[in-house]
Amino acid sequence: MDGSFAADRLEGQSQSLGKVLSYADANMSGSLDRLFQLLRIPSVSCDPLYAGKCQEAARWLSHELESIGFASSVRQTIGHPVVVAHHKKSGGPHVLFYGHYDVQPVEPLDEWEADPFDPQLRVQSSGETHIVARGASDDKGQLLTFVEACRAWKAVTGSLPISVSMFFEGEEESGSHSMDAFLDQARDELSADIMLLCDTYLWNDAVPAITIMFRGLLEEEIEITCANRDLHSGAYGNAARNPIQVLAELIASLRGPSGEVAIAGFYDDVKEPSRELKAELDKLHFDTQTFLKNVGLSQSAGDQTYSALEQVWTRPSCEINGIAGGYYGDGLKTIIPSKAVAKISFRLVDGQDPEEIQSKFHEHVRARLPADCTVKFTGLGASRASVIPSNSKYLRRARAALKDEWSCEPVMIGSGGSIPIVGVMQSRLSINSLPIGFARSNNRHHSPNEKYDLSSFHKGIRSWIRILAALSDGEGNRSEL
Amino acid sequence: MDGSFAADRLEGQSQSLGKVLSYADANMSGSLDRLFQLLRIPSVSCDPLYAGKCQEAARWLSHELESIGFASSVRQTIGHPVVVAHHKKSGGPHVLFYGHYDVQPVEPLDEWEADPFDPQLRVQSSGETHIVARGASDDKGQLLTFVEACRAWKAVTGSLPISVSMFFEGEEESGSHSMDAFLDQARDELSADIMLLCDTYLWNDAVPAITIMFRGLLEEEIEITCANRDLHSGAYGNAARNPIQVLAELIASLRGPSGEVAIAGFYDDVKEPSRELKAELDKLHFDTQTFLKNVGLSQSAGDQTYSALEQVWTRPSCEINGIAGGYYGDGLKTIIPSKAVAKISFRLVDGQDPEEIQSKFHEHVRARLPADCTVKFTGLGASRASVIPSNSKYLRRARAALKDEWSCEPVMIGSGGSIPIVGVMQSRLSINSLPIGFARSNNRHHSPNEKYDLSSFHKGIRSWIRILAALSDGEGNRSEL
Repeated sequence: MDGSFAADRLEGQSQSLGKVLSYADANMSGSLDRLFQLLRIPSVSCDPLYAGKCQEAARWLSHELESIGFASSVRQTIGHPVVVAHHKKSGGPHVLFYGHYDVQPVEPLDEWEADPFDPQLRVQSSGETHIVARGASDDKGQLLTFVEACRAWKAVTGSLPISVSMFFEGEEESGSHSMDAFLDQARDELSADIMLLCDTYLWNDAVPAITIMFRGLLEEEIEITCANRDLHSGAYGNAARNPIQVLAELIASLRGPSGEVAIAGFYDDVKEPSRELKAELDKLHFDTQTFLKNVGLSQSAGDQTYSALEQVWTRPSCEINGIAGGYYGDGLKTIIPSKAVAKISFRLVDGQDPEEIQSKFHEHVRARLPADCTVKFTGLGASRASVIPSNSKYLRRARAALKDEWSCEPVMIGSGGSIPIVGVMQSRLSINSLPIGFARSNNRHHSPNEKYDLSSFHKGIRSWIRILAALSDGEGNRSEL
Repeated sequence: MDGSFAADRLEGQSQSLGKVLSYADANMSGSLDRLFQLLRIPSVSCDPLYAGKCQEAARWLSHELESIGFASSVRQTIGHPVVVAHHKKSGGPHVLFYGHYDVQPVEPLDEWEADPFDPQLRVQSSGETHIVARGASDDKGQLLTFVEACRAWKAVTGSLPISVSMFFEGEEESGSHSMDAFLDQARDELSADIMLLCDTYLWNDAVPAITIMFRGLLEEEIEITCANRDLHSGAYGNAARNPIQVLAELIASLRGPSGEVAIAGFYDDVKEPSRELKAELDKLHFDTQTFLKNVGLSQSAGDQTYSALEQVWTRPSCEINGIAGGYYGDGLKTIIPSKAVAKISFRLVDGQDPEEIQSKFHEHVRARLPADCTVKFTGLGASRASVIPSNSKYLRRARAALKDEWSCEPVMIGSGGSIPIVGVMQSRLSINSLPIGFARSNNRHHSPNEKYDLSSFHKGIRSWIRILAALSDGEGNRSEL
């Protein structure tokens, strides 16, 4: 490409950018109207009663994408459909945007201040405005920031700065059971240079973030059986092995005295974060005391040789998510139960293989099982950790675009949780992700009165408008960071 | 008393005994008819719906006792009524018989082969006959063995060999909440030389037993709270203290490596059984392997320096009866719960004070509680162990009477469970008990298809007929054992 031509093009694009941003600002009521339309469709994916509503949400999205020039279609799966849409041009990078149109159930319904599927704009005493509805933030509001950004580019320039494909699934909140088969089938069609997604958080109200690592997750159920039936604790107490006691001793054995996970070899394959990553995390000046105080705690409970932030982002964990055995209603029943069960999950970090961790966990338990006990393991799911290369040009460009929009340096953060699609696209299609979201931690995802801040929606759209421009071919567009 | 007169009287009584036994044999159908009448009254004490039925059962019993010459009345309490009846004569010992007319609920109803309150006689392929109904064995069938024994004596001789009082409560299966107030009020009226009760078991089908020790029971609920709400296990996993982990570690700390209870001072006040008692237990040639094998176990789990029989009868225990925390439905929820709760009970032996054990348990927990955790204890009940003097003349006489009826030496046994009334009468009214029951371990107490063996009912009546005679003044009636 000839330098002066490129410079002209970039200058033109820079002029366009201003117009596109202005267009988005001027057309917020239209964007909001479309968000409300989507929010009114109760696309609860885990409940078969709403299967038709999931279809409706998919069709609505596909129709909207067609209206802004995408070649879009609704692809049926064994579960809820996937929307796939393309708007391609020759040359330049090709981005694939991922989102999900399904939502969590609304229960407990009586804790909602209004119908969860009748979205409300609520002006707060702080002056902020909340969009309140199920899915407002997770993920309908967030995914529409990207769609509306494309709409603005298209309206002003008649095109998009780069090739864009999108795919929206309808089973994110219920296990993504159709995703593997769908990816097998749509593998070629979904190839792209980078995947964008918006299912993440701001660092704080004023500072945007790119989430560059997610922990993986190994989910296990463990059931201990001793006697062949519940026993009277008088007649057998002492003599009969008690599965709750056994399970408690096993759980106690999972953590060592410093809070470290005490399964042999558990940390063997853990890749320490790079020096660059550590430097990024240091920049956050994470306030451990406030993080813990907000939930009523004062001290971190994990491996004490790591900070609380490291414990939740860069160190693997073992959590007991649930336990049940014997009688737990009112009063007391004098039984020694036959069985006790626990749900145990491991958050994994870069380098750890879920299958290996599973087999080490099983070995750990089997080696400690006393006489007269049997154990049954049930695998409930597994995903690897994902780490996004922090030195890619796409990340640098997106970072610069965010800095322009938010007038501050965006931060690189981790997530203690998991977004399995990030790891799946990395391992199966070799596509890295750029997760950039505008949700706030108080958005009440999965809870009653879920909300999305109107400013998140607005600045989300503006951020994507800038990121699309920055990704286009911006080596000379901005000084690199 | 003149020696020759006493001898005449005893000879007369010995002749009477034969007639009374024959009367009982000849009138079994009448006894069974009365048992069926009582079994048809659904006197479920824990369910307020059946309060009227508890009144009906009490009135039925009182009426029957009046019909055999007892001065009987139904005493109202704040809960279900108590039936009190007296048939006194001058001189000789005075026995107080205790039983309960209330029954457990019948759930799960669909596991019953017939209506639980429509008693059935079921002839087995073994030739045995079962009386199947809720309460057949626990305790209506057992208590009527004593009433029918009195009826036979009265029918044949016009009187009873000794002074007899009876009291039947209607809340044994639901906590005996009215018993304390009732005993305060009826203290003088219930005074007696010995309390008889029938709420216990045969040693085996052919060998009767006197139960001479019961363990006490301390019941506790412990709730551990960490964060002020359930947390996302991704966002907080490692850093946030997990109350299930804490509870598991506390429970693990309650037992030492040999299976002993590891609370400091737990065994301090334990009184070792007397040499006589140990000798009685040795005579049982208890078959540990069968005891454990019947419930699918092979090794005793308690303090390995004691036999399984000692573990359940003469050693205190600590059992986890229930545990619950977090999510335990299908699949997995990635939470770190705010709370976890366990029901823990201690079976206590002679010498142990429930209050002291409670405070040692609380100290044990508090000393091990990590930062950011609070503990809430809820006491759910406490009773001391009871040991019945094994050298009393009443016990010796009853033992001789049982030997005559069963043609074998009766055994002295322990019970790992608790019959609180035994300890209450001992501590509050200084009345020792003689627990002699005819139930079998397969009677399905508290379970569907509860049954009482017709032979238990028959030989139970005959046994009490003999015991009443033996207790009368039998120093010369039989050679002492």
